[in-house]
Amino acid sequence: MSLGSFLWGAEDMRRREEILDALARYPLKTTCLNPYRLSRKELWTLRIQQNLELMELKMQLGWGAQHYLDALKIAVPDIASLNPNFRIFLKNLKAQMSSEQQAYWVPKAQNFEICGTYAQTELGHGSNVKDIETTATFDADTDEIILNSPTLSSHKYWIGGLGVMATHTLVVARLIVSGRELGNHVFIVQVRDLKTHELMPNVLIYEQGEKTIGTFASMDNGVMRFTEKRIPRSQMLAGFVRLDRGGTYHKSDNKMHSYTSMVIVRGLMSREIGQDVSRAIVIALRYATFRRQFNKKDDGAETRVIEYASVRNRLYPALCRAITMMLVGRGISDQVENLRQHNLEDLHLQTVGFKVWATEHGVRDVEVARNMAAAGLGSIYAQLSASRTYEGDNYVLSQQIGNSINKHWKRKTEDTIPALSYLTRLRDVQKMSLQLAEACDEGAFLTPSTQNDLLEHRVALLASRHISDTEAGRDTSYDVFELTMAHADLVYWRGLQSQTKHMSRDHEPAIKSLVHLVSINKQLPGRSDVTRTDLYNPSQFALTAILEGLSAFAGSTYLSQTNIAQLREAHRLQISSFSDHVDSLVNALGFTEMELNSAFAKDNQTPYEALLETAQQSELNDNTFIRPAIARARNMWKTYQNGQAKL
Amino acid sequence: MSLGSFLWGAEDMRRREEILDALARYPLKTTCLNPYRLSRKELWTLRIQQNLELMELKMQLGWGAQHYLDALKIAVPDIASLNPNFRIFLKNLKAQMSSEQQAYWVPKAQNFEICGTYAQTELGHGSNVKDIETTATFDADTDEIILNSPTLSSHKYWIGGLGVMATHTLVVARLIVSGRELGNHVFIVQVRDLKTHELMPNVLIYEQGEKTIGTFASMDNGVMRFTEKRIPRSQMLAGFVRLDRGGTYHKSDNKMHSYTSMVIVRGLMSREIGQDVSRAIVIALRYATFRRQFNKKDDGAETRVIEYASVRNRLYPALCRAITMMLVGRGISDQVENLRQHNLEDLHLQTVGFKVWATEHGVRDVEVARNMAAAGLGSIYAQLSASRTYEGDNYVLSQQIGNSINKHWKRKTEDTIPALSYLTRLRDVQKMSLQLAEACDEGAFLTPSTQNDLLEHRVALLASRHISDTEAGRDTSYDVFELTMAHADLVYWRGLQSQTKHMSRDHEPAIKSLVHLVSINKQLPGRSDVTRTDLYNPSQFALTAILEGLSAFAGSTYLSQTNIAQLREAHRLQISSFSDHVDSLVNALGFTEMELNSAFAKDNQTPYEALLETAQQSELNDNTFIRPAIARARNMWKTYQNGQAKL
Repeated sequence: MSLGSFLWGAEDMRRREEILDALARYPLKTTCLNPYRLSRKELWTLRIQQNLELMELKMQLGWGAQHYLDALKIAVPDIASLNPNFRIFLKNLKAQMSSEQQAYWVPKAQNFEICGTYAQTELGHGSNVKDIETTATFDADTDEIILNSPTLSSHKYWIGGLGVMATHTLVVARLIVSGRELGNHVFIVQVRDLKTHELMPNVLIYEQGEKTIGTFASMDNGVMRFTEKRIPRSQMLAGFVRLDRGGTYHKSDNKMHSYTSMVIVRGLMSREIGQDVSRAIVIALRYATFRRQFNKKDDGAETRVIEYASVRNRLYPALCRAITMMLVGRGISDQVENLRQHNLEDLHLQTVGFKVWATEHGVRDVEVARNMAAAGLGSIYAQLSASRTYEGDNYVLSQQIGNSINKHWKRKTEDTIPALSYLTRLRDVQKMSLQLAEACDEGAFLTPSTQNDLLEHRVALLASRHISDTEAGRDTSYDVFELTMAHADLVYWRGLQSQTKHMSRDHEPAIKSLVHLVSINKQLPGRSDVTRTDLYNPSQFALTAILEGLSAFAGSTYLSQTNIAQLREAHRLQISSFSDHVDSLVNALGFTEMELNSAFAKDNQTPYEALLETAQQSELNDNTFIRPAIARARNMWKTYQNGQAKL
Repeated sequence: MSLGSFLWGAEDMRRREEILDALARYPLKTTCLNPYRLSRKELWTLRIQQNLELMELKMQLGWGAQHYLDALKIAVPDIASLNPNFRIFLKNLKAQMSSEQQAYWVPKAQNFEICGTYAQTELGHGSNVKDIETTATFDADTDEIILNSPTLSSHKYWIGGLGVMATHTLVVARLIVSGRELGNHVFIVQVRDLKTHELMPNVLIYEQGEKTIGTFASMDNGVMRFTEKRIPRSQMLAGFVRLDRGGTYHKSDNKMHSYTSMVIVRGLMSREIGQDVSRAIVIALRYATFRRQFNKKDDGAETRVIEYASVRNRLYPALCRAITMMLVGRGISDQVENLRQHNLEDLHLQTVGFKVWATEHGVRDVEVARNMAAAGLGSIYAQLSASRTYEGDNYVLSQQIGNSINKHWKRKTEDTIPALSYLTRLRDVQKMSLQLAEACDEGAFLTPSTQNDLLEHRVALLASRHISDTEAGRDTSYDVFELTMAHADLVYWRGLQSQTKHMSRDHEPAIKSLVHLVSINKQLPGRSDVTRTDLYNPSQFALTAILEGLSAFAGSTYLSQTNIAQLREAHRLQISSFSDHVDSLVNALGFTEMELNSAFAKDNQTPYEALLETAQQSELNDNTFIRPAIARARNMWKTYQNGQAKL
């Protein structure tokens, strides 16, 4: 197995290769050299046309939904409105419908005979799903359900693909049967006529309009309001609930299901954000390797900026984090498949941490890349920045970690949740009061047990603070974010370990290479106590996380100044040895020029050549249209100098 | 003096009121409801037209350059190309020209008879000004200077206002006289014909083209190349150098001058960024006060999100930082005016810290505001994000702090530089090994001396690390950034103290109010030892800085766990008491609806109403143009289902 297959996953890599091959044979006909000069409507139309063109390729080649989604990602830099049908709508039909319903609806969505989306968020309620206001009232007389948006704040909002494209939408609304509130349920509603594409009666939809910095400019996010909209009872999704003809209501109490779908989405987010960040970092690395600045060498050339700590200490850990997101995110999918053997709450707590951590680090790392090499990173940045808020605002979501800690601490049940191992540590008063032994050299920080100690001790300190803040009745909603990030550092680190360990048995050569890339420092003075297992130790990841989280150790005696100096030295050596492996890692990721889509990553041009070419193509190079206005302004002083002109 | 005057500065406030009054009487005729739907060329044209319209108002009302710049800032959300003439070109003419040159050129720039800009950065060299490649070779035969761009990397790049507008530009180039390299000098060059606006011979200019996320979309940044471009010798700026007819060269060694102009620019950046961040935070506060989420109260309404620590602990310190940037930035201008009495290097080291700190915190704080309340913050964000790189990349600039520390540490000359006081502390072995006394209560952390101790001790620890890293030959270019941020925390804190103290003598009522706003907690248990002077103590600023910088104390025994718990409690109480004063502070800033330019800050609409109205105005609400393409795609499956279609 190639390193590329290990990074992307064997199946994804095969799909990726098929898609790249198809796109080379049938390249997109709809192209635009500089899409960011377009008006929003023009850009939106361009992206839709590209989406539709790929739809034809999908049909022609018999691709499934995942092929299509991956092809969109590879060939079209902005997310457009066909994505929700295959990504969210179709998946929820399969997950939440009864088998009869599935038989009817799923083929239609697969064929794109209908175009669907998922409408949950309202103007007034995003994270707080429980208080969604849209009502779905059962009318026993007609055997229908009546949807209503009673208030301004109950308008569905931010619904991707709804503003223009959708013919159908899944709607989350509060079911009311005979005056009884039964909580949120999901309904499928046709919103546009299949022939004319006009809105259906009793449904009002607006496209949401332009957003600043072009975030999701090529998506038609929609606003929707229902006024006495009637749908047949059969359009309530019945995978886990049943509403009978007369209004009798049955619910299968399947918590497993709702957990699972969140776990899957968050595992997927981790992978996808990892891919996006990798792409950004690869562009920045390309530029940082080309660009020279200061410190002329003997040959008169200045030093490549990648050689400075200020650049590599930001880009290398970012690449390491991105790959970790890809690998560990994939691990989640594997675990979900064998779910019975696993602890669902544990997986949930892992992936809540992943969502918060991946979006926070992701957006910061892309921002770093963008500041070093602006070209081409704007749309990745704009999308990622929003991801901190959608799928659960990061501060709101972090409270799930905080609440779990409180619950298991009180009940003394943390043994059942491996992700909360640090609570066990926290109960061990002796362990918490110990100091980390003075290490004999930097190598000590490369052993997994020390790294585990450090990462776990840090979360334990923050958890302890959280528990006492909660007990004192303080509002923990701000501080719990730092706790969650530390929690996720530990969980990601363990996931990375298990991914590399696990893989190694089957695919030794590839792993060995990867492990070198993300971990062990060959140049360390001969450490006979570093065993073979230690080689699987993703040290750069761990050391960066610990160094960036040192604030938790302030006031604690766990780490001495000597410890910290050795830790910094170990990190420095790791970064330095990692530079030998960056190229093979970048090659294994294998992003094409089309995907990188940046003036800094052209196959046949240097960044400077590409920047000049971009300038030569600017529409404003013909400025004749503005010359009369300029000439007038530059002569204005003559009029007013004489003091004659008055308003 | 009103609180508003204190925050903005009395003179700026008067100017601001005059402008707001003029704009109310003569509102802009060129308007656009939703500029972000426009193509880049349309947006650029809109902003230029607005700039030109304000130019007419300037002439009519007899406004000076500063009035015009402020009016642009108030009335036009994006920076457009008329800004450089008044902001950079004009200032440099005054600062760097001989009096004869000034007499000829300054009136032309003031009248906008010519439109100028400043061309320093090249494709290959930004921060490393010394290695700029454009040459200016003196030709004694014709008494001319010949400008050349010998390479691709010597093209001038990112030059604001050059791509379309400029008729003239100041050019930084390496002067060569009789084969002798004399280093960088500044030349004034006409680049476009004053009548036809065509490019002058031997000058090639391209507009730079569209940038991602719309950063400076309404600026015509330009790329420029000279090929044997001849200008008369008199167009070399001669304020500090002289080149005689025969090629004899004289230089007045005025380091004072070059320092001063950088100090002024960075003081100005601090003020302006403070204003921008304030504006962003005011928008976010408006939304956070309106928006409710979770935790229903007795009346059935959910809790306002501003009441959560997760929101206020991010917005309040950000507002506090923004006001600090405004106040301390203004203090720099005052100090520059009385420069002889001050230490120029000290001011330089202060303002280097300000630039790095203000741009870093500024962009993060605006990002926080943008994540909470997207509407209207995109262009502030896009501009601020770039500010970390321009006027000296923050990591490169930070090295000036690091180098100064090394220099004065070695020479033992830190006594002469108040900004480096922490080096004195670092030499005091006893002081460095002390522990901070256990405080009797949280109030101890509100005394200026304790805050100074904490902030100074932290920089001392980081400076000590920097010095030993340098001695060990390690690359400090990454770590020096943290050191610079800590350095700036201390310098800003002192500046804030001195601003509030200084002002209080003259304008007691206003100050008292401000001091309450940014500092003292009334609810603390009666502290008889808190003297009147302590009231000027900007505690929220200090406590936030210390808490966010705790990592420096890891491994040190200076702070105990009890200290840190008290520190956190003191901060918590500060944040809580600050909430009583936010409204009067926001009112004193007095941003108008026009300036806030956000759906979340309308005078006569709630945020939800404004968001719905934006959606109702979307161009994509008429989707008839795309319906045929959608219909075709939704029927595609019929063709391919039969397996007949082949590529």
